[in-house]
Parts: sequence; structure tokens; C-alpha cells
Amino acid sequence: MIAAPMSRDELSLIHRYWSAANYLSVGQIYLLDNPLLREPLRPEHVKPRLLGHWGTTPGLNFIYAHLNRMIAARDLDMIYVCGPGHGGPGMVANTYLEGSYSETYPDISRDAEGLRKLFRQFSFPGGIPSHAAPETPGSIHEGGELGYALVHAFGAALDNPELIVACVIGDGEAETGPLAASWHSNKFLNPAHDGAVLPILHLNGYKIANPTMLARMPPEELRSLLIGYGYEPFLVEGSEPELMHQLMAGTLDAVFDRIHAIQTEARAAGRVDERQRWPMIVLRSPKGWTGPKFVDGRKVEGFWRSHQVPITDARGNAAHLKLLEEWMRSYEPETLFDEAGQLRSELQALAPSGTRRMGANPHANGGQLKRSLKLPDYRNYSLELPCPGGLVAEATRVMGAYLKDVAVLNAQARNFRIMGPDETASNRLDAVFDVTERVWMEPIEPYDVHLARDGRVMEVLSEHLCQGWLEGYLLTGRHGLFSCYEAFIHIVDSMVNQHAKWLKVSREIPWRRPIASLNYLLTSHVWQQDHNGFSHQDPGFLDLIANKKADIGRIYLPPDANTLLWVTDHCLRTYDRINVIVAGKAPAPQWLTGEAAAIHCAAGIGIWEWAGNERPGSEPDVVMACAGDVPTIETLAAVALLRAEMPQITIRVVNVVDLMTLQSHKHHPHGLSDRDFDTLFTQGRPVIFAFHGYPQLIHRLTYDRSNHAGMHVHGYQEEGTTTTPFDMLVLNELDRFHLAIAVIDRLPELGSDASRARQCFRDRLIAHGAYIRAYGEDMPEIRDWRWPHAPSAVGIP
Amino acid sequence: MIAAPMSRDELSLIHRYWSAANYLSVGQIYLLDNPLLREPLRPEHVKPRLLGHWGTTPGLNFIYAHLNRMIAARDLDMIYVCGPGHGGPGMVANTYLEGSYSETYPDISRDAEGLRKLFRQFSFPGGIPSHAAPETPGSIHEGGELGYALVHAFGAALDNPELIVACVIGDGEAETGPLAASWHSNKFLNPAHDGAVLPILHLNGYKIANPTMLARMPPEELRSLLIGYGYEPFLVEGSEPELMHQLMAGTLDAVFDRIHAIQTEARAAGRVDERQRWPMIVLRSPKGWTGPKFVDGRKVEGFWRSHQVPITDARGNAAHLKLLEEWMRSYEPETLFDEAGQLRSELQALAPSGTRRMGANPHANGGQLKRSLKLPDYRNYSLELPCPGGLVAEATRVMGAYLKDVAVLNAQARNFRIMGPDETASNRLDAVFDVTERVWMEPIEPYDVHLARDGRVMEVLSEHLCQGWLEGYLLTGRHGLFSCYEAFIHIVDSMVNQHAKWLKVSREIPWRRPIASLNYLLTSHVWQQDHNGFSHQDPGFLDLIANKKADIGRIYLPPDANTLLWVTDHCLRTYDRINVIVAGKAPAPQWLTGEAAAIHCAAGIGIWEWAGNERPGSEPDVVMACAGDVPTIETLAAVALLRAEMPQITIRVVNVVDLMTLQSHKHHPHGLSDRDFDTLFTQGRPVIFAFHGYPQLIHRLTYDRSNHAGMHVHGYQEEGTTTTPFDMLVLNELDRFHLAIAVIDRLPELGSDASRARQCFRDRLIAHGAYIRAYGEDMPEIRDWRWPHAPSAVGIP
Repeated sequence: MIAAPMSRDELSLIHRYWSAANYLSVGQIYLLDNPLLREPLRPEHVKPRLLGHWGTTPGLNFIYAHLNRMIAARDLDMIYVCGPGHGGPGMVANTYLEGSYSETYPDISRDAEGLRKLFRQFSFPGGIPSHAAPETPGSIHEGGELGYALVHAFGAALDNPELIVACVIGDGEAETGPLAASWHSNKFLNPAHDGAVLPILHLNGYKIANPTMLARMPPEELRSLLIGYGYEPFLVEGSEPELMHQLMAGTLDAVFDRIHAIQTEARAAGRVDERQRWPMIVLRSPKGWTGPKFVDGRKVEGFWRSHQVPITDARGNAAHLKLLEEWMRSYEPETLFDEAGQLRSELQALAPSGTRRMGANPHANGGQLKRSLKLPDYRNYSLELPCPGGLVAEATRVMGAYLKDVAVLNAQARNFRIMGPDETASNRLDAVFDVTERVWMEPIEPYDVHLARDGRVMEVLSEHLCQGWLEGYLLTGRHGLFSCYEAFIHIVDSMVNQHAKWLKVSREIPWRRPIASLNYLLTSHVWQQDHNGFSHQDPGFLDLIANKKADIGRIYLPPDANTLLWVTDHCLRTYDRINVIVAGKAPAPQWLTGEAAAIHCAAGIGIWEWAGNERPGSEPDVVMACAGDVPTIETLAAVALLRAEMPQITIRVVNVVDLMTLQSHKHHPHGLSDRDFDTLFTQGRPVIFAFHGYPQLIHRLTYDRSNHAGMHVHGYQEEGTTTTPFDMLVLNELDRFHLAIAVIDRLPELGSDASRARQCFRDRLIAHGAYIRAYGEDMPEIRDWRWPHAPSAVGIP
Repeated sequence: MIAAPMSRDELSLIHRYWSAANYLSVGQIYLLDNPLLREPLRPEHVKPRLLGHWGTTPGLNFIYAHLNRMIAARDLDMIYVCGPGHGGPGMVANTYLEGSYSETYPDISRDAEGLRKLFRQFSFPGGIPSHAAPETPGSIHEGGELGYALVHAFGAALDNPELIVACVIGDGEAETGPLAASWHSNKFLNPAHDGAVLPILHLNGYKIANPTMLARMPPEELRSLLIGYGYEPFLVEGSEPELMHQLMAGTLDAVFDRIHAIQTEARAAGRVDERQRWPMIVLRSPKGWTGPKFVDGRKVEGFWRSHQVPITDARGNAAHLKLLEEWMRSYEPETLFDEAGQLRSELQALAPSGTRRMGANPHANGGQLKRSLKLPDYRNYSLELPCPGGLVAEATRVMGAYLKDVAVLNAQARNFRIMGPDETASNRLDAVFDVTERVWMEPIEPYDVHLARDGRVMEVLSEHLCQGWLEGYLLTGRHGLFSCYEAFIHIVDSMVNQHAKWLKVSREIPWRRPIASLNYLLTSHVWQQDHNGFSHQDPGFLDLIANKKADIGRIYLPPDANTLLWVTDHCLRTYDRINVIVAGKAPAPQWLTGEAAAIHCAAGIGIWEWAGNERPGSEPDVVMACAGDVPTIETLAAVALLRAEMPQITIRVVNVVDLMTLQSHKHHPHGLSDRDFDTLFTQGRPVIFAFHGYPQLIHRLTYDRSNHAGMHVHGYQEEGTTTTPFDMLVLNELDRFHLAIAVIDRLPELGSDASRARQCFRDRLIAHGAYIRAYGEDMPEIRDWRWPHAPSAVGIP
């Protein structure tokens, strides 16, 4: 038992501060008017529609008040990640009490009229959301979709040595998978260079209509679990406010002493020998604490009935109205606010000041702190090509060389990290290991490679952790890249949705400064999963991103290494976006010089004149379009086949790097005008489009283009297994032969030549099928195919 | 320390059995020919392309051999869930050794020729995948995407009291969030009515290129973690085979004694007072155990370099070829297989027989055991309507009454469960609690409601667990429904992808019997998240499903209660599909009688003649189409507005229940023919389409229809916050006024009347906006809107 660390006066003050926060929380949920209860509560003072969550809020307020005490006493740099984001009234109440809310929104002043507006705007049309949203000062975390509080907190703490991230985890949220894995983030946090995360597991016992697992399991089992996660748990349990205040204050004193000791020791020693056992808090308090104990004879406080609005229909039911008034008056508002409606000065004095207030901490508006990355000149990494197709290289390996220097240039700033589920090397980005390591706080054996206490690469077999760490890192003003198997990025679909929503809203809030974009490299993509098979083949993430607001989503499909370089450099310079780059790691022909790549990528789409054989001044017979590295190879191979077998066909090759160019400029800022689109794709010639992903995405993007009816898209048809790379293409009819046949099928004027050529391509398909079943690998002429047209003839820029 | 439980003879036999499995595993990865090494290994015996994962395989084989021993000794009904599914060679090897593989695939016979084919087919074009796939007898789990082994195992064990599900969890997989949460499934498993799950955490120390967290953390911390998860961990650690065999055998004896004791006690008592502490095993063995220790001077066994193919280029590198041959001969194949190439009889005798073999257990081909659900006559639950719009009801509450009787009728069969993240009641399905409860093995307090040791409803705040349990339940031949907030079903996108892949492949495998469909009720949908706000608004799951193979995915948008009843009944009768039903829980006008609903739903799409005002024999001026309950209301309200303000416009109303009818019949079995589509939508009249989800999905489904250019789709535009329900529609231009204006805008022939009507609708939008900002709720005329056209005039069927 911890002795009483606070004097009677201190205790009384902090209790009143908490009461003020609780009062403001209830007021936001219920009141339209009469904010200080200076007259008896009447039905018309109550909102017609009651929307909000009370249950978690008093606990959130309790924590906030006590963290304020720590900040003030120790001059701490702290932010508050509120896992139960639907406790929005609490976050708003506390930032209002400390003054940061009114500074952000001067219209919500610190007086009676401001209070009235504060109450009215909550969950009200034209007002503010019910959750801790981007609109909430001090928040980097919405909390609407549960599971990501702790991983966001760790992301925020990385490379922020002075920062302490207090993270409240609801016991509902704690049941989710991502949260369960997030505890292990302590295995990647270096006390010398990173800040601290203080997890506060808030056991209020109930979800919407059920008890929670963590609150109902035997306490010794919970303790064992948390120790197993690597923490030193401190328990704060009870419901009697006076005891709880003393217990919480004493516990926080102990916990911050411990954090300070860990950090001081690590920083003094200059090295870290082993992972630290960081402290954490288990706060076990009643759900709906200080609220009505029973309503209509049914248990409310300490039960799930307090989850949302504990007293319903306070406008229409006089007994309920009376109960609400009694509840609100139980906080004694007249002792908390002065005549003008301002928080009494002795209570104001409890809050920290300036940017020490958690609602004004710049880390929670990370764009304020963001410094641009130092980027090397990407042109220095360009491959030199004698001619298109004249070189074979692994695109992501070239990108790796560039990223290595990004790591070097920003090493001192410590503001760039690469995340990935154990695949940085396998994805050919291993050049970065020349200059940095994978961070790892568990023991390191002599035979381990590229593990260190310090490193810019974070690898864990959890896409959720990679995504969540990076989000937290970006939201606090830093930069990064997430490299992932294409199929498994779907694991974080829902996190991406939430981040996109955060960005969308943040962009509309003037005081939220832009943050660095969330950049993905999706490699080991669908066309390079012939070895792992069907479960590893899914290009559908592109469809998810295409559903996002046009301001947010970008999809890049660079066809080779030099285009990948341009795109990578570009994405690292953008902000407030989600950039998806899809690029393979397999050795492949290279098409564009650095200079040509820059021109092509800046346009996002273009005709590859050197590849086609159209005649100046007349439309080609067919347009062969391609988006994606492998589809580009197959398209060019099909062009070569057709030029050899059917030289009378005139072909235009269009390559798409920036997929959003296909959409109308009315729908997307990168979209081509209809005139430009028609110039590329013609108004009526057949277009054989070889696409990296599901074909329907192209149809969806181009549905309102004039030549849409002429588009024939080949892409992933959800066919695959463990087979050869080329057989994967054949199974989905994305291979050169099917593409060439598709061209012939769309040109009825070809006559009998067509049947001969078609038969020739079919025969070659059959021969290849027989070959792979005999030898288990692709025919050499396929594997080693090279673009046959000489450079002098192709006019490469 | 456990004493030696096996005699010398037994030990020798089990070791040789394990050696045989290891030998066959290496053979599959490497050999084209010379399967018994009866001649020296030559380059041409080796596959040109080496694809497969060795690292995890010897451990999987070790476990398999020892589980066989338990099955044989105790006549156990057991299946093997192989989390590291890429250890496919091991699963294939063991089912081959026990004979179930050759029974399933007679071509792979139990002789030298069969062995040759067994080796050759692995990871080979036209052969079998490298993972434990649907093609693998005894598997219900692919394991390609990691994280779901344990939750699948629990799903399989539910309501299967005699079944033991051995579940191997790789230490890579154990880092994922879903797996971390899955441990808590023990809080929902009833030893009286459910089977047992035996988790075997296989710590081989490494992922692709990194150590694993669980293997490197201090052992006492790991133990604490597992105890915290509620298990009694038994450690089997080492590398010396003889000791390890004895240790494993003794541990399994103890573990199965413990499982038996738990079950016997619970079943004898007839009641379960508290959750049991089930046993589990931690197997710590070297990665690539028994494989090459070093290759080219670099550590391989016991390190991540053994993850995939430990010796590369065995065809081209003579030293590597020699090493491979030595490795394979170290298993002494001549002592394992007889002259004919058959496993020696004394080793065959170790395997269980018949359906006790894990490769032949019918639970792993659940369709074999599936019994159809007993379904009540859904018509008995139909709402009686005086006329369209003549009744207001909550659709999901009506569905709840139906599901209640589904629960009753199948209570004895114990083959139907409802899963959901804490929302069964909030989603208005609470009628089911009249007849069953939520299952809960933690303490139950007197004031708790609808919690019991036994119950058909499973609620946990983890969509991953709900999804995984249901998948495991379905894969073993049972039925269920997952009810979820629409936005958060994205959390399991990737699991859905994998299940769709499993179904797609299973349907192509003759011996895999159909399993019940995976049925979703997505409620609290995007248009009913005005209170929770933007984070809860996302209808994009429909896009994910639309990417699936046409055989697999179905999307239903019933507009009211009676159509929801029909759709629910239909979905519960289907198999091998993923059915998504989107239906709101809010009070809403009802449109169709039970009879009319049946006709409409069977067609999937149709004209609502009673709603439009077109004249027989001539095309309407405009088609107003709708899909989704809220869009249907808005469309009808727009029709009413137009019929009042602009009666000269002739309108056809088309309602879509089965979204896939929109696709061409060439692409989807439910798709309309072009002629039928044109009959409904006309070939050239404007179509104002009010859609529940992202508008692009409609464009994508209809891109090749003749009237596609005439389609103007209104849907979710990614705009939203905490506001009123109607304001949500206005923000996304899906409300009646925007729809009515859209009609007018598409009919230039209307002349000056149009401007007047347009202005009228705009004024009403503005008035409504002002109203909600004043009162915080929708105008009564909007909230209480009713279809104004009298029944006598509308000819309701």
C-alpha cells in the first residue's frame, strides 16, 4: 500500500478538477443550454437526441487530471493517447479546462457562453464528433475502431527521447488482436534514443453489453499475462474517490520514478544491455463512475448500462430529468466555476501551461514538428541503359541503394524508419543494412546478422504492428516506408481506412499541419508468388485505395527500376497522402533511362513510341496499354510477337505509372482530361489493357471515357497455385500469347492471316505448358526473353 | 523430468517413422527422380527450381509421429491444424506414410513409382502447392497467411465433444495480432459440450531472416505469458532426438491425461463451475532440425537460413549435390522402405488406421459430416402490410425472431452458432436470447444478463476471433452467422480473402464435400452511423466481395424486413459461398408483403410498379434504381416529391436485392442477360441509381451494359461525421432532394418547370440544414416521412 502522497488540500483540488471534467462531460452529452445549472433544469435545456458515451469517460478524466499533476510537478513532455476514443467528451472537457481548447477554437470561450456552446456543439449537426477525432486538440488517435492505441503510442515514442506517451487502453479494446500483439512493442523500444510509453489498462469491466475478458479473468492471471508481455504492472483499484486519488498519485510517482531511472541509466551508460521491464498501470474502476447508480431500478454504475447515455429521454421523462439534474449537481458546479463561468483560478492552477498542456503539445499535431527529409538526388542511382530492354536488373534492389542514402542523410535527424514483416532483405532492400540495422532489444547471438539495439529498420511478423508504428511515427511528424508482401497488406485494410479518414478530416482543419504521407512498397507481388502459391496472390489493395477520397490515395505501378526511383523520391516528398507503390523484386528487363523515366513519371502515363509501330498522322489499329512491371513485359513481348508475325498491324503502346491518371480529372486531381485521354487511347480503336490487378478496377476508373467500350482488360482473375512465373500469367490470360491473340481477335479485318497467327500463338502456349510440366521451370526463351528491336530503330529519348 | 515412457524398441520405431517423414519431406523439395536413392544422386535427379520450406518441417513431422502414437494408444479422434502451412511437405509426407494420401490420390501409390510421383508433384506445375492447401488430406487450414491457426482450431472443437484439435503454432505466426488474441478462446470453450484444443507452440527460433520474439524472450517471461493466457504450459526442449522422443512422449501422456481428466470431470458433473486451465505444449527445437548444420561455412540448422531450401543449386553445384545426398542418406532410407518402396510394415503399424488417421479424419473434410440446418418456414415471420410503406418496423428485429427459431430447431444438433463483437442485442437480434445465451466461461455475476456456460451466441470484441471461430466451425461441417458493424468487417478482409481462396480451390477438388456458406449480417451500416461518426462509416466490404470468383461471392441488400427474411433463409441453405447481407436496424417503412418479397428476392431485381408512374407501352422518362434499405427509402421519397411537383415526369422504380444481378451473366451466374437488363433499365433513358455503397461499384458491375452511359450513381462519397441520419445522406448527395434534382437535371426537355422544382428542392435542403443546426435532430416531416400513395392506387401484389 502506498502512503498518501497528496496533502488534504491537494487531494481536494484534484478531486474538484476531476469533478469539473466529469461535469463538462455530462453537460456535453445532455445540455443545449443552462450550462451552469443556474436555473432548475427544464426539458428544453436537454438535447432532443442524446448521443455520446459516458461509461469510459470518468476514468479517462481521472487519468487526465493525475497526468496533469505529474506534468506540472516534473515538467514532463507528455501526450495522451485515448484508446477509448468514444470517451470524446472527456478529452474535450480536459482540453477545455486547461485552456488549450479555447485557444484552438476561440469561439468556445472560457465563460458561461463558451460553456453553452461547448455543450451544444458536441455530437450536434455542424458541431464536433462524439469521438476523440482530428478536431480534438491533443489527439493523434480517433479510437473509433478499436485496437491501435498502444501501437500508435509506441510509434509516437520512437526517436522522441523526451516524450512520454500515456496510453489508455480500454478493456474492450484489449480483446482485439492488434492490441494483444502491441504489448510486444516494448521489444523494439530503446530507452536511450526513444521516449517512453506508459500503458494504462483501464478495466472498467464492460463493453456494450458484456463483461470484458481481462476484467473477469482471475487477477493473478492478468498479472501473469502482463508480466509475460514484459511489463511491471502497478494496480490502482477501487471506487472510493479519496482513496483512489491517493493511490493513483502514489502509483504515478512510483511509475515516473521508474521511467526516469530506466532512461537515465540507459542514457548515462550510452549502451543498453538488455530490454527493460517498463512499468504500466492497471486501473480498475467502475464503468460510469460517479454517474447514476440505478436508473428505473436497473444497475447502471459499474455495469454496461452506463456505456453510452445512462439516463435516456431526459427531455420527455420528468423523473429522468430530475435524476439528470441531481447527477449534474452532485459535482457542485457552483464550486468549480466562478461567476463568469470560468474554471476557478485555484483549479486552473493545477493544469500545466503552454505546450506542456496535453491539448497543446506539438507532438499531437505532428506536422508542426515535421522537417522535410533530406533526399539524395535519385538520378545518381539510375541505371544506365544502352537501349530499352538492354539491361536486366532487380528494381527494388536499385531502390534499396537509394533508401540506404536516405537513411544516411537523415541518420542524425532520426526521423526516417522502414517497417516490414521480416522481408526487408527478401524484398531486395538489403543495401540499407550497409548503414543501419534492425532494431532488437532481446538478446543478440553472435551469429545473428543485422540486429542491433539501434537501427532504422523495424521487422516483426505483424503487419498490424508495422502499420500502427508507422502511423504513430508519421502522426508525430516523422517519415517512413512500409514494405510488405502485396497480398498481406490486406491485413491492415481497416487501419488504412481509418488513417485515410484521419487525413481527410485533418486536411479540412486549418490548425492541423500536414504530416508525411504513408508510403507503401508492395513487392513480392501477385505475379511473383508462383512459389508460395494461391494464398499469397492478391492485388486487391489497389481497389481499397481507389475508394479513398481523391485527395488522399495514389497508386503507382512503375514498370522498371528508374521509374521506381522517381516514384519513390516523389512519394517521400508528399504529405497527407497514402501512396502505394507496387514493384517487383525479380530480375527483369529495364526500359527507360533516368531521363526518360522522369518525363514519363511526371506525366504519369504516356505513349512508348519506341515500342509501337504506328504511322505518323494516322491512328494505330490497336492500343496496347499496360500498368505494372510484369504486365509491361508481357505487353512488350506481345508487341514483339505481333510485329514479327503480323507486321501489318499498327500498334501503339501506352504505359501507365500513375493509375489515377485514368480517372476523369473531374474525379481525381491526377486524372487526364477527356481530350488527353482520347489522344492516348483513341476514341474508337480497340485497347488491350494488361493490368497488374483485378481487371474491374480499370473499368471502374475509365467507365466514363469515350473509348470505354473498346477497353479489353486482362488482369488477375483469381487463378493461381504453386507453379512457374509464366504459368501464373497464362492461368490468368495475362501472358504475351493471350494478349497477342486478344489483339487479333479484335481486328476482324485481318482475314486469314489472323487464324494462322492465332494458331501459332496457341501452339506456343501448348508447347510451353508441356515444357513446364516436364521440367518444372519456364522455357528459356520465355525466361530469357529480351526486347528484340534495336536501339537505333527505336529512338529512345 | 519425465521418466522414459517408451521402450527401446518403441523409441527406435518412432524415430525411424520420423526419419521416414523427414526423408519424404526433403525428397519432395528436391527430387525429380531416384526417390529411394537406389543409385547415386545425379544432377538430373534434382528439380531445376527448388521451391519449398524445410525449416519448420522436421518439427511438424516430430509432432505428427507422436500424435499418431497417442491416437493409436488411446483411440483418439484427432485432427492436426498446421499453423506453419508452408511446412506442406511434412503434412503430405505424413498422410502418405499413414496411407490416407494414396487413398485420396490413388495415382500416388505406396511404392517406388508412387514415391517418385509424390516427390515430383510437389511445388511443380500441374502438381500440388507448397503449402498445406485444400489439396492436402486432413487439412482445414492453409496457413499461408499467418495468424489464424489457433482460432480455427477452437472453431473446429466447438460442439465436437469427442474431437481433439492439435494445433501447431509457429513462433513467427505467434507474433501476429490475431494469434495473440486467439489464446483467449479458452474463455469460450466448454469442456462438457465442446472438444479440446491442444496448442503446441513450436519455437524453432526464427522467421525468414530474424529471430522470433517468443523464442528470444526470457523463458520465464514466456511461461508467465502462457499462464496469463490461461494455460498450463508443458515444455519439451532440446535437439538430441532420443531424449526429445522420450520427453515428447511423456509430455503427451501427461497432457492427454489432463485433457481426459478435465473432460471427464465436467461431463460427470453435468455442470462447469469455472474455466479450466487446459494444458499446452511449448516445443523448443532447432529450425531445420536434422538438416545440414552448415552450408558453405554458414550456419544453417538452428538458424533462419534453414527456412526455405537449405542447400541451393544442388543441380549445378557438385559439392551441394553431395551434401544433399549425404543429408538424405542420413535418414537411412533403405531401412525405412522395403524393396517395393513401401514403408516397412513395422513402421506402418505405428500409424492409426481408418478414419483415426489424421489425413482421413472426416472432421477435416467437414462437408462429409454436414447436416442441413432445420429451418422454420420464414413466411411465418413475415410482417403483414396493409400497403407499401404502411408499417414501420426494424428489419433485423424480425430477422431475430426467425433466428431464434433456427436456434431452437437446431439446439439438439448443436450445429448453429451466431458470432459477433458484442453487438447481437444492439443489432436487434436479441430475440435469440429468449432461447439461448452468450457462452462465457469466466465468473458470472448475479446481475449479468444472458451469460451462461452454454450458449449458441459468441461475443468478443475481436472481429478476428468471430471470423476465425466461424471459419473453423464451418470447415468442420457446421453452420453459422456473423453479425457485425459494416465498417469494421474490413478488419477481417484478409481472412475473408483466404477463406474465399480455400472455397475456390475446394470446389475444384472432387473429394472435398461442400461446407455451409459463410454468412454475414452487416448492420449498423454506413447510413446508421450518424451517432458514432466518420470512423464507423465504410461500405467498402462490398467491393472486396465483388472481387471474388463469381462462384463464391453474393451480396444482398434487402430493402425491408420481409425481403431480409427471404434472403436470410436463402443464405442459410447455400453452401461453399460467402454471403453478405446488409440490412439496417433502425425503424423504417416496410415495402413488400411476404409474398411480394419472395417473388422480388427470387428474381433478385425488379420493377416496383406500384411506386412508379410509367405508362404502359411507352418508356418512362427516367429510371430510379435503388439498392439498399436507406437508398430505397430515399428513392421512394424522391419519387413522391417528383410525382407531387412534376407529375408530367414518368418514372420507373427498379429495386435491386441481389447486387450480382447487375453484372453480365457472362461474368456472374446471377447476372442478368443483356436483354433483361435493357428491359429493366432501358437502352437510353437516364438512370438515377441510389446505392448503399461506393458509387464506383455500380459502374464497375454495369460497365458493359448498353445503357451504362446513362447511369448516374449516388452513394457514399466518404463524407460524414457525427450528425443526424438525414444529414449523412445530404452530405453524400444520396438524399431525396438531391435524387429528385438529379432527375430534373437529366431531363432537359422539362423547361421552366424544372427550375422551379429544382429551387423548391434546394430550398427544402436549406431549411432542413437550418433545422438540424437549431434542434439537433431531423425535421419531423423527414423522420416520419411515409409513402403517400394509397394502397388502392398502387396495386400491391
